Amino acid sequence: MQRYFSNSLTNNIFTLSKDDSYHIKKVMRMNNFDRIEIVHDSMTYICEIINLDNLVEARIEEKIKEDAEFNKKVILVQSLVNEQKMDLILQKSTELGISEIYAYKATNSVVKENDKSNKKIERWQRIVKEASEQSKRTIIPQIKGIISLKELIKLNANLKIMLSVNENKKSIKKVLQENSSCDIIIIVVGPEGGFTNDEEKVLQENNFISTTLGNRVLRTETASLAILSMINYEWMD
Amino acid sequence: MQRYFSNSLTNNIFTLSKDDSYHIKKVMRMNNFDRIEIVHDSMTYICEIINLDNLVEARIEEKIKEDAEFNKKVILVQSLVNEQKMDLILQKSTELGISEIYAYKATNSVVKENDKSNKKIERWQRIVKEASEQSKRTIIPQIKGIISLKELIKLNANLKIMLSVNENKKSIKKVLQENSSCDIIIIVVGPEGGFTNDEEKVLQENNFISTTLGNRVLRTETASLAILSMINYEWMD
Repeated sequence: MQRYFSNSLTNNIFTLSKDDSYHIKKVMRMNNFDRIEIVHDSMTYICEIINLDNLVEARIEEKIKEDAEFNKKVILVQSLVNEQKMDLILQKSTELGISEIYAYKATNSVVKENDKSNKKIERWQRIVKEASEQSKRTIIPQIKGIISLKELIKLNANLKIMLSVNENKKSIKKVLQENSSCDIIIIVVGPEGGFTNDEEKVLQENNFISTTLGNRVLRTETASLAILSMINYEWMD
Repeated sequence: MQRYFSNSLTNNIFTLSKDDSYHIKKVMRMNNFDRIEIVHDSMTYICEIINLDNLVEARIEEKIKEDAEFNKKVILVQSLVNEQKMDLILQKSTELGISEIYAYKATNSVVKENDKSNKKIERWQRIVKEASEQSKRTIIPQIKGIISLKELIKLNANLKIMLSVNENKKSIKKVLQENSSCDIIIIVVGPEGGFTNDEEKVLQENNFISTTLGNRVLRTETASLAILSMINYEWMD
């Protein structure tokens, strides 16, 4: 069943956004009495469409119980990479349960922040919204914008992981298992050229743990998706 | 350091293939005395280029010890998906350590096998070769071709996993931990529309275990990469 997010609930009736109304009417070509899933305030409802005239309205039929979210907060800080890779990371990290995403202006990032950054962030928000609907999440991950190293080291968490190719690194398994009580986790993933020595040094001095995912060399987008998959596995029953 | 695979070794001197010679001369613009990594028979050698006239020749300087491969065989049976997704899966599963890849003509596969299948397989082989070089592997995964359900159920392994959205499924963590002694593992991943009930039934009757990666709905390409990441994690020290 198609899923949408809505903030507008009055007397058991949701009103959908302009974009979602367009999607329901023109893309899905739905009719009155058709059913959709609507997520509101992290709760999911099966609803029946009751009005297609302007903004779509749908009436709650049933509340359903879901368990699609981590009970910990996982924050991805992804070094800026080209558009195609960034889109892939945003979509896949949403499917894999991410809570918040920052883009980091790494020294070796080929893509730089520019005047179009606001448009870029709007695009990113659309991608994570669609991926949240498709993967049946009950929250939409927050896109927190593009940050500098200074801002990165100030982010608040009780486990800070940096993926590194340095010598002195711990396996992700050891890091997760030794820190199982942490409930806010930041993962920093470098750009294609990796972090500079200076970046690694600053991150280490600010309690980011140099971590490895294994003996093969992973591309930056593979690394982001692999570590999130591994976190899912570690926290699985 | 750039890595290449070579089968041709005589008196400590490798001769590289036509494609790799072109890459070294025209793309990388290397010169005599430049160093490259060459993998031969699953062993890695640091070599010095000594001849660029025709096919590139390189002399062994040093043998290096690497530990990039699983000591178990992991076989991915990926249902046929569109070209862009297939390319992504081939590249990423190579980075994540896959041993062999089959494509499966699933009932719900939108992409069908056709006259161009041989060309397609050649392309797939190029993708996994390049990904093996880039990710510093010491074997190139084998592309085993496109198979039917009848051929799929005859494949030999001591752990057979099918990713399923069915009710009666076990978590991947339970499946891997209960079968830790298995040394040949097959993973079957469905197409975008999922397996049909008939396919699931036949697979189950042939000892494929219905397995889930968690409570979110993953796209087919995300599922393939997530399960391989989880296998890496389970086998990590």
